[in-house]
Amino acid sequence: MRCDVLAIGTELLLGQIVDTNSSWIGERLADVGIDTMEHRKVGDNLGRMTAAINEMLTNADALIVCGGLGPTQDDVTREAIAAAMGVELERREDLVETIAAMFGTRAANMPANNLRQAEIPVGADAIPNPIGTAPGVRAVIDGRIIYAVPGVPYEMHRMINEQVLPDLLERSGESSAIVSRSLKTWGVSESGLAEMIAHRVDVQTNPTIAFLARGIEGLVVRLTAKATTDEEARSLIENEETALREVIGHLVFAVDEETMEQAVLERLEARGWTLGVAESLTGGLIGARIAGVPGASRTFRGSVASYASDVKREVLGVTAEKVVSEECAQQMAQGARGVLGADVGIAVTGVAGPDEQDGQPIGTVFFAIALPGQPVEVISTRLPGDRERIRQFSTISLLNLLRVRLDALAELEA
Amino acid sequence: MRCDVLAIGTELLLGQIVDTNSSWIGERLADVGIDTMEHRKVGDNLGRMTAAINEMLTNADALIVCGGLGPTQDDVTREAIAAAMGVELERREDLVETIAAMFGTRAANMPANNLRQAEIPVGADAIPNPIGTAPGVRAVIDGRIIYAVPGVPYEMHRMINEQVLPDLLERSGESSAIVSRSLKTWGVSESGLAEMIAHRVDVQTNPTIAFLARGIEGLVVRLTAKATTDEEARSLIENEETALREVIGHLVFAVDEETMEQAVLERLEARGWTLGVAESLTGGLIGARIAGVPGASRTFRGSVASYASDVKREVLGVTAEKVVSEECAQQMAQGARGVLGADVGIAVTGVAGPDEQDGQPIGTVFFAIALPGQPVEVISTRLPGDRERIRQFSTISLLNLLRVRLDALAELEA
Repeated sequence: MRCDVLAIGTELLLGQIVDTNSSWIGERLADVGIDTMEHRKVGDNLGRMTAAINEMLTNADALIVCGGLGPTQDDVTREAIAAAMGVELERREDLVETIAAMFGTRAANMPANNLRQAEIPVGADAIPNPIGTAPGVRAVIDGRIIYAVPGVPYEMHRMINEQVLPDLLERSGESSAIVSRSLKTWGVSESGLAEMIAHRVDVQTNPTIAFLARGIEGLVVRLTAKATTDEEARSLIENEETALREVIGHLVFAVDEETMEQAVLERLEARGWTLGVAESLTGGLIGARIAGVPGASRTFRGSVASYASDVKREVLGVTAEKVVSEECAQQMAQGARGVLGADVGIAVTGVAGPDEQDGQPIGTVFFAIALPGQPVEVISTRLPGDRERIRQFSTISLLNLLRVRLDALAELEA
Repeated sequence: MRCDVLAIGTELLLGQIVDTNSSWIGERLADVGIDTMEHRKVGDNLGRMTAAINEMLTNADALIVCGGLGPTQDDVTREAIAAAMGVELERREDLVETIAAMFGTRAANMPANNLRQAEIPVGADAIPNPIGTAPGVRAVIDGRIIYAVPGVPYEMHRMINEQVLPDLLERSGESSAIVSRSLKTWGVSESGLAEMIAHRVDVQTNPTIAFLARGIEGLVVRLTAKATTDEEARSLIENEETALREVIGHLVFAVDEETMEQAVLERLEARGWTLGVAESLTGGLIGARIAGVPGASRTFRGSVASYASDVKREVLGVTAEKVVSEECAQQMAQGARGVLGADVGIAVTGVAGPDEQDGQPIGTVFFAIALPGQPVEVISTRLPGDRERIRQFSTISLLNLLRVRLDALAELEA
């Protein structure tokens, strides 16, 4: 089964918006084992859209058209599919009612433009859109299948996951319930991770196990199971996750949409511990990530970005002679606890470049973690990359070190 | 003249990398007035690449192929162009020498794979690549022109700007020297900006004036001039920039690649003033952006992200009863100056959500700026959007307020 993707929008061609939708769809198709070999972008032009649909359907078994389902005169995906089918559009009264309900109005009072979204080609099916006004469209043209989905990412994601992929799999004779789960890891290379779980990857066909590199957000191990029911697919995932966690459990910091900072805050909150941060080269990145989590105020006290050396001394009480040193990191973490009145203090100092500092080369970083009733732990490392990469890596590395320490503590207590 | 774009790479189809190159090229083509109507992505497959090239060249006058010029066996853009031309590849000894020089080695010692990059189709031209090993390719097929450029963004950008666009313009009978300049603005809506400079936009054809929305980075007014020489194009740009700045000069915070934080640091450094920051809802974002600028340490003292209310009191000396208030912002800015030992203190406090605070609705934000020898200035506003948007808008808004104050001061002194 080959499914290609056509993204619609003049703004995509002009570079006003980057087309991330077709990448996302390509990733999901790969997840479930469907080939995708060509993606196109065309503008909001009926003739060119119709030509693209006809051409693409001669090469692929299926086509996903993304965008152009809005209410304005520019949005002509419905018309293009009708043209490719050689049929007219018809207004479907059931869709009029559904769209009116989304607007919280009566069908009779709906603006004329929105009525356009209730039109679909004769002989096509509407795909329900539970979170937006534009229904999708599904049609068969000469034995090939075409799906039109909205361009709004979260509406599109849900329609693809819940309706398009199951339908595609069913048509290709495969089980149509799909469940995916992402195990997010930090602190291991792709080859290291691959080696650790090679014994599972090699024998597994359902769920499949894929690696996705997410840059400074780490490596994701994504499991995708197919079955006849959601429950069955979920159970396949859970069994595989258990087997994988026996080997890589300590590297997994979060699942699916959860972030590293959420994982850390959750563990701190479970203990009723508050957090204070002292940052040097990161300049506030660590505090900024933590404060980005809704509800962070229950746990996060604050952060001192002590960029200048004498701010480290005067605000945080550092006495170490060299500010890029184990001793300085240790004193910063203690300072963060004391000055910010926090149970837990974490700190980072190091050299992001462009110049060396304190005789230490660029990339040298010292992390420190001060937990209640324990000696301060200091970890030093040498990070690769440029200034921005060193700052970002420092941020997530320190958060992960804290997560690992909290997990180790929980294990000791268990 | 119509020029379409073909991006090469299986990783693009699988969503492992988002294709931002074709968007960037589309934007540049629009800048210089060349139509672009279809973009495609195909994988590293000789047959499908060749078919795509042939098809796309029947619709467009010109085609830019991006990627697939590397040294590995996967990289078959050269082969695909040769196939579309119906010719063989030939090794060009002058290219062997150039590539060897890039590697700092002798041609005789170069790995065989790199020799592949010295091969181009018989009858095609090589496009010099001054910053990478892969030369580009330019060829004419049945009167249509095809360019192959590297997929590495900074190599691609330079080759497009310096070689491809001038060549395209010359072929379309236009002047081939192009100069663009981006005036970056903050603090005005797109319609407001459009109205302010309508009298220029309406009469201008060279340079053209375009608006680009950059989200939390503001609105860009981009000027693009064409002329027979670079010098002439630059002079056209400069004249127009002067005319525009008479109207929107106060809104322009930077030009081209410069960022808001660079603009602020530059102005502070010119006065020999240091900067301290006190942040509440932003949690460290402001410090993090400032510390991201190489050389920030000459000016930036640090930032206190006083997330918890009693950190505002104990560390920054705030006495205001309500922490989301004009008085609190004012005391935070003064506290930042004092605690961080800085000449200039800036501060922000407000409500990012998810809940109201101090009886103030979500989006309420107070900014404060403390300059040496002047009363602290406080500005309050109500920002739209969700938590993350409010935090990001607060960050850039405060930096811009400081920039505006420093510019006003400079004007007073002039």
